[in-house]
Amino acid sequence: MHQITINTRKTEQFLEITDKIQQLVQESGLKNGLAFIFCPHTTCGLTINEHADPDVTADILTGLTRIVPVNQTFAHREGNSPAHIKASLMGSSVAVMVENGQLLLGTWQGIFLGEFDGPRTRRLWVKFIETDKD
Amino acid sequence: MHQITINTRKTEQFLEITDKIQQLVQESGLKNGLAFIFCPHTTCGLTINEHADPDVTADILTGLTRIVPVNQTFAHREGNSPAHIKASLMGSSVAVMVENGQLLLGTWQGIFLGEFDGPRTRRLWVKFIETDKD
Amino acid sequence: MHQITINTRKTEQFLEITDKIQQLVQESGLKNGLAFIFCPHTTCGLTINEHADPDVTADILTGLTRIVPVNQTFAHREGNSPAHIKASLMGSSVAVMVENGQLLLGTWQGIFLGEFDGPRTRRLWVKFIETDKD
Repeated sequence: MHQITINTRKTEQFLEITDKIQQLVQESGLKNGLAFIFCPHTTCGLTINEHADPDVTADILTGLTRIVPVNQTFAHREGNSPAHIKASLMGSSVAVMVENGQLLLGTWQGIFLGEFDGPRTRRLWVKFIETDKD
Repeated sequence: MHQITINTRKTEQFLEITDKIQQLVQESGLKNGLAFIFCPHTTCGLTINEHADPDVTADILTGLTRIVPVNQTFAHREGNSPAHIKASLMGSSVAVMVENGQLLLGTWQGIFLGEFDGPRTRRLWVKFIETDKD
Repeated sequence: MHQITINTRKTEQFLEITDKIQQLVQESGLKNGLAFIFCPHTTCGLTINEHADPDVTADILTGLTRIVPVNQTFAHREGNSPAHIKASLMGSSVAVMVENGQLLLGTWQGIFLGEFDGPRTRRLWVKFIETDKD
């Protein structure tokens, strides 16, 4: 298992991690397969979306907060239940194909850590699955 | 990596792709493992849900639009931020088990591409992971 | 493919399945790889979130019902469209790393079946993917 560490800087933000994952792929020597990225935290999540215009992930953050408003009453005493809900809406892992040692992403895609209860030091775990070329 | 192409016909719709994936499984000769399906776009996503009654995916579309109304103001100039949000809510990939050369799905399940900013020509990427029989 | 059976007891609830999956990992003899868990139903889903304080999953349930209110009108005659929508929001599968025969989860994480249209007898399918140690 490989690990990367990310220091988030705001209460909520999407941070692109594509380059960090690509670097791990190169270090691993994997030519063909899948990169599986897992978030071991419960108030942040992972998603793949547009990285060309940073307004898109800003809008996803805005949209998520409209979906799960922060001023609602919840049972959990820590007061961060909206962050837990957003984490489950995004999901705790993503997987991306690798071919010829390169992550295969669409033209506009990047891999993002969604921080919903920061700023914190977050770790991500990565494992590679080797497959045939096709 | 295998690729399938899908022409969506509406602004928003769920299109079943189960048969196309099953056909790829057969062509690949995979007997036991996983089919990993990845969407390289940022305004459509993938989900697995009921395919018996088409009202179900129609209702999921209705539900998503109630969750992310189209008349909200967002920063992204293209005006399709609700589509990006829906894509992240559904997710960019699904994985399905394969046994004896057949996709393993529940009785009512089908695999769907969720188009949220169509109509467009969409591509899906598929990779197979071989595993032991169990 | 391995199968576990879970009897849900309420209309809606999150039930932790971490121990059942860990037991399957041990029975399988898998040392390093991934456990892939698939839900073959269309009105329940899978998520990974906090298991230390049961208020957290109770709040996720509350949050999901605020997002998809039960009193909305939908087309599907069975009347359980909100359950189908919640299932797609959570997702039909999760994957967790295994190292030295142990599931690798964050300190606060557990694996949960989210029942949205119970009580019912639910099955979950599990497949293991072997990988190198790293």
